[in-house]
Amino acid sequence: MIGPGRPLDTDRLYIICVNSLGSCFGSTGPASPDPGTGRPYRLDFPELSVEDIVSAARDAVLALGVRRLYGVVGASLGGMAALSFAIQFPDQAERLVCISSACQASPFAIALRSLQREIIRNDAAWEGGFYEPGRGPVEGMRLARKLGLMSYRSASEWQERFGRRRVSQGRLPSSPFDIEFEVESYLEVNARKFITQFDANCYLYLSRAMDLFDVAEWGGTVEAGLARVKAGRTLVVGVETDLLFPFHQQREIAEGLRASGLAVQLECLPSIQGHDAFLVDKERFGRLIGAFFAPG
Amino acid sequence: MIGPGRPLDTDRLYIICVNSLGSCFGSTGPASPDPGTGRPYRLDFPELSVEDIVSAARDAVLALGVRRLYGVVGASLGGMAALSFAIQFPDQAERLVCISSACQASPFAIALRSLQREIIRNDAAWEGGFYEPGRGPVEGMRLARKLGLMSYRSASEWQERFGRRRVSQGRLPSSPFDIEFEVESYLEVNARKFITQFDANCYLYLSRAMDLFDVAEWGGTVEAGLARVKAGRTLVVGVETDLLFPFHQQREIAEGLRASGLAVQLECLPSIQGHDAFLVDKERFGRLIGAFFAPG
Repeated sequence: MIGPGRPLDTDRLYIICVNSLGSCFGSTGPASPDPGTGRPYRLDFPELSVEDIVSAARDAVLALGVRRLYGVVGASLGGMAALSFAIQFPDQAERLVCISSACQASPFAIALRSLQREIIRNDAAWEGGFYEPGRGPVEGMRLARKLGLMSYRSASEWQERFGRRRVSQGRLPSSPFDIEFEVESYLEVNARKFITQFDANCYLYLSRAMDLFDVAEWGGTVEAGLARVKAGRTLVVGVETDLLFPFHQQREIAEGLRASGLAVQLECLPSIQGHDAFLVDKERFGRLIGAFFAPG
Repeated sequence: MIGPGRPLDTDRLYIICVNSLGSCFGSTGPASPDPGTGRPYRLDFPELSVEDIVSAARDAVLALGVRRLYGVVGASLGGMAALSFAIQFPDQAERLVCISSACQASPFAIALRSLQREIIRNDAAWEGGFYEPGRGPVEGMRLARKLGLMSYRSASEWQERFGRRRVSQGRLPSSPFDIEFEVESYLEVNARKFITQFDANCYLYLSRAMDLFDVAEWGGTVEAGLARVKAGRTLVVGVETDLLFPFHQQREIAEGLRASGLAVQLECLPSIQGHDAFLVDKERFGRLIGAFFAPG
């Protein structure tokens, strides 16, 4: 599962990190060639669920000859996947670490991702999903990524980093709506980095998988779903400034697991980087996860 | 100034509500005909500031023969305008009511509005601002409005109103990315209402005016700007769930005014409707503003 690498002692632990099903970075996804036609699956790729992602990852692990994991660790979509693994295969992981994740997507998170997808689909270059490989809706992806960045970070971080600083003091922009504030320039630079990296259709499928994820599908309620977990020890970590997977969603996971008598450590980190903190505030996350996996 | 009507006793108070300069609902703006050419100003309209909006409103008031106001009341952009009025014309209003407003736009709010504008400008139908009257970037406006709605409301309200309900239980959407959740349908319906009402260029100008507003331009710091206010009584109201004009920005206004010895009532309302609460939670706002203006 996806997890920050450094806090895990690789002299003692063997780390298996499986690329997500549906993604364009090594697993099969909408950008992969359909063996039947030789052309990318595109929208013929079936609807993707977090459960599918987990099953594929487990198959990869089984193919390596590993039948039981010491722990599953994941953040964000990866946290949903780690939780889903513990629900689907309760006897196959001893420990569980869910970072900035959720039992189910909130309507606010669904709305955000839905708008990102619509911005991409509205770009004429998306061509109803049938753009040629290597081409596609780069403008839509750029704008969707900006919206993503807004939901991944926090207002307090940007206040600290950018305040109201202008990009070049004293120089007027060439049109009244050009980039003028540093925060606008930051979004532009970061969104441009992303568009050449990620296939648009893969993005759409993975995004929708997060909306669809719902622990309540395992037994009718969130409580029933969480009651399937048997992990001996669980760490649930969230961040105070996270807008996308807010801390109360971490509390929901922890309380649900505790209700079935499991040992759960719940941690709320004061990181100011919002949902992205697990990628940035490595110090805080590393210390916590390192201690969770420390021997003794 | 803009204010909820009902809590103000119109037997006792005369309410003047001036449409904002730059808007398309009665004042001069980018959609108005340029007398020199007979065609809309469009992007030839000069950069718009909150100060301009306030000066135009004050001219309208003076033209009515009114030299001194009993109070200025405004919410959101209107709250910035009310505050700006009290800074620019300190002797001309006895009372000040700032609702869900700010001394200056935060980088998070700037980023949100910047992305809304970019979505509109990226729509080919914007035609660089030169679309024909009555036409324009309706798709861009629709998507920008959805982003607006997300910033105006709150995650907790949507959790309560929509949860994870599907639009029509048991019916699969015709494509994997169609509207499936109720929250997506809500955004679509509300965004469609808006696009036929608001001129795109007017929207861009008013949006940028909010980014540019900064009390610190009056004397070098926010404190110096606020120190110009002389209103005998001030009410500053904010909402706990407001993402766009968060409560700490209301506190900043109140503390700045108190620092210069003014009588300030600061209220944090527990409304769940986010920034839009002043349009929706009329009960709470009405009671508060009614009491502030009650005689005796």
